[in-house]
Order: sequence, then structure tokens, then C-alpha cells
Amino acid sequence: MKKLKERIIKDGVILPGDILKVDSFLNHQLDPELLMEIALHFKEKFKHIDANKIVTIEASGIAPAVMLGYVMKLPVVFIKKKVPSTMQNMLVRDVRSFTKQRIYTVSISADYLTQDDRVIFIDDFLAYGNAARGVIDLCAQSGSTIEAMGFIIEKGFQGGGDELRHEGYEVVSLAIVDRIEDSKVIFRETDD
Amino acid sequence: MKKLKERIIKDGVILPGDILKVDSFLNHQLDPELLMEIALHFKEKFKHIDANKIVTIEASGIAPAVMLGYVMKLPVVFIKKKVPSTMQNMLVRDVRSFTKQRIYTVSISADYLTQDDRVIFIDDFLAYGNAARGVIDLCAQSGSTIEAMGFIIEKGFQGGGDELRHEGYEVVSLAIVDRIEDSKVIFRETDD
Repeated sequence: MKKLKERIIKDGVILPGDILKVDSFLNHQLDPELLMEIALHFKEKFKHIDANKIVTIEASGIAPAVMLGYVMKLPVVFIKKKVPSTMQNMLVRDVRSFTKQRIYTVSISADYLTQDDRVIFIDDFLAYGNAARGVIDLCAQSGSTIEAMGFIIEKGFQGGGDELRHEGYEVVSLAIVDRIEDSKVIFRETDD
Repeated sequence: MKKLKERIIKDGVILPGDILKVDSFLNHQLDPELLMEIALHFKEKFKHIDANKIVTIEASGIAPAVMLGYVMKLPVVFIKKKVPSTMQNMLVRDVRSFTKQRIYTVSISADYLTQDDRVIFIDDFLAYGNAARGVIDLCAQSGSTIEAMGFIIEKGFQGGGDELRHEGYEVVSLAIVDRIEDSKVIFRETDD
């Protein structure tokens, strides 16, 4: 997605450890108009997918997921990064965070993810794919199927996306960062 | 907002301790179409407000805030419920959670909340107003001004909203729960 890549180059910040920060439009401050364009882009990429639900992870996944849910007319469920004390009937899984070097627990209510669900999983970033593995496991626990996954930015050099594709998952990333060189983002060539 | 109140009656669940759960359309599973209607409703209520930014708190505030940002053509910033290790220049404040009976730390980057900002604060719930107090303090730290606050559901019997109104804040709540009686929600009479 050309406009997204231009925005990453313009407003993204590279920190030590190849961390790409997009806090000014995606992870802290949000640009709703860009998010709507992202949603329309995902919708086009997923037009052959027969899904009935969008699933994402709090917090940065929620904005793109709800926009996509709006344009695809589908409900959205966001996975929580903890196990809420006031919720019952939760499916639970531990996930390792690369950026934050820690383990966190993700959970989703079995009321909102069932064997009848055909899921598109949406998230802001794909790196090693640890969050995606957590979601795959929660979907397996619930008996639901993952029809496709969509990521706004994939860090291609960390390999999670290619592993998922190799395993047969349909993975759409709107901008794939092939490498970071001299604090500059180099994108993988894609068809748009 | 009539449609919202009907939905709360239809799908809300009352737990012991007067906790109203709306997990099926607002706090865990999200109904994007309803969220768009909520955003349009807020936009109408705020048409006299000269704001340049929407501020909310992760996670449940993000979906309504990004929808409102979209229809009002304003950027959104979501306050984080922790202090991220990869972020600098953060404004920080402790907040007491009534529902969860604990203290948590909220933070926002001073890069995205400055003295030039005229803020509409959006959140899913208003109860005692503790989160709102945290946001008021973060805005004071940054030098920004709060032009208005919008909440989807206000628990009127917990008093936070009326206190804020008494202090002169413009507080718009789309559904005000006056009390919970025999596990039934009784709404305050409002003009729509």
C-alpha cells in the first residue's frame, strides 16, 4: 500500500534493535482517515474470503480491526492481554513479546469465539509471529477457523510472516519491511 | 441515544456489585455499525465544540474514539495503561480503578498532547470519574485544554458525571444509568 509506505518513511522512527516506531499515526496517535484507507485496502485483499468475524489483540489492533469490521459489516472481537477478573468462560494462552522481552497472557471469551466462526485476524505489526501463534492457538481451542490474517506492517526480516505463509496461512501485509539499513526502512517489492 | 439504551437492555448483563457488562457489543466483542452511529451522535452533540484532537484510554475507548475521529476528521491519541519501555517524553499519572480495585498508571506522550491542543475526551464508561480525573491531570500537565467529554454509558448513581458537570465540564453521556433495580437497568430521562 503505497500511501502507507510513504507515511512510514515520512513519520516512522527507528530505534536501536531494529525497532520501528509509528507512534505518530498507528500505535499511540491514530490517523483515522489513513485507518479507513487501510481497512478498504484489506477489504479488497479479502474479497474472496468467507469470514463472519474479525479478531484482533488490544490495544493497537483495535482501531484497524473496527474500521475493517465497519467496511466489511462484520463484528469484531478483541483479545485481551490479561485475564479479566470479571469475565468467565475464557480461553487463555501465554505469548512471548519480542519487543518487550516478557511473557504475557492473552484471553478471549469462548462466548465470542466458537466453532461456527470463520475468522480474519488483524493486527498492526507482524514480527516473529508470536502474537499470531497465540491467536492460532485460541482459535484451535475454540474450534473456529482462521480464514486469513492481515497486518499493517510486517517486519519481513524477523521471519514470522514467511513461516506462516509456508504453513499455508493466507497472510496479507500492507507494508513489508525487508530490512533496516543505516536507520532507513527498505521495503520488500510487492504488487501494489 | 434510544438505540443504545435498547441494546443495553437487550444485551447488557448485570453482575453482583452493580457491574453492568456490555461485552457482547462494546467491551470485548464490538459492533462497528453501532459504534459508527454512536460516533455520529457524539459529532452532533459536539457540533459547537472547537476541538482539534480526540483523546481516549486503551483499550475499550479506542473503537468509539477512532470512529469519532473519522467522522470529525480529527486525530486520536490513546492514553496507555502503563508506561511503555520504548517511549520517552511521557506524561504520567496514577488512577484508581473501581471495578478492578487496584491502582494503575496511565501515560501519554508529550509529543502528542501539547499546549496547542483542544481536546474531546472519549471513553466507554463513566462511573466515579477516576479515569476522567487522570485525563484532566494529564491535560493540565501538557497545558492542553479539555473542551468536552463524551461517554457511551454513564453510571449516574456513582456520581462521577454530575461532579464533573458541577465543576463546569461539558459532559455528554449517550445513556445514563440512574440505578440498577432487581438486576434491571433504569435510565435517567434525557432529551433523546
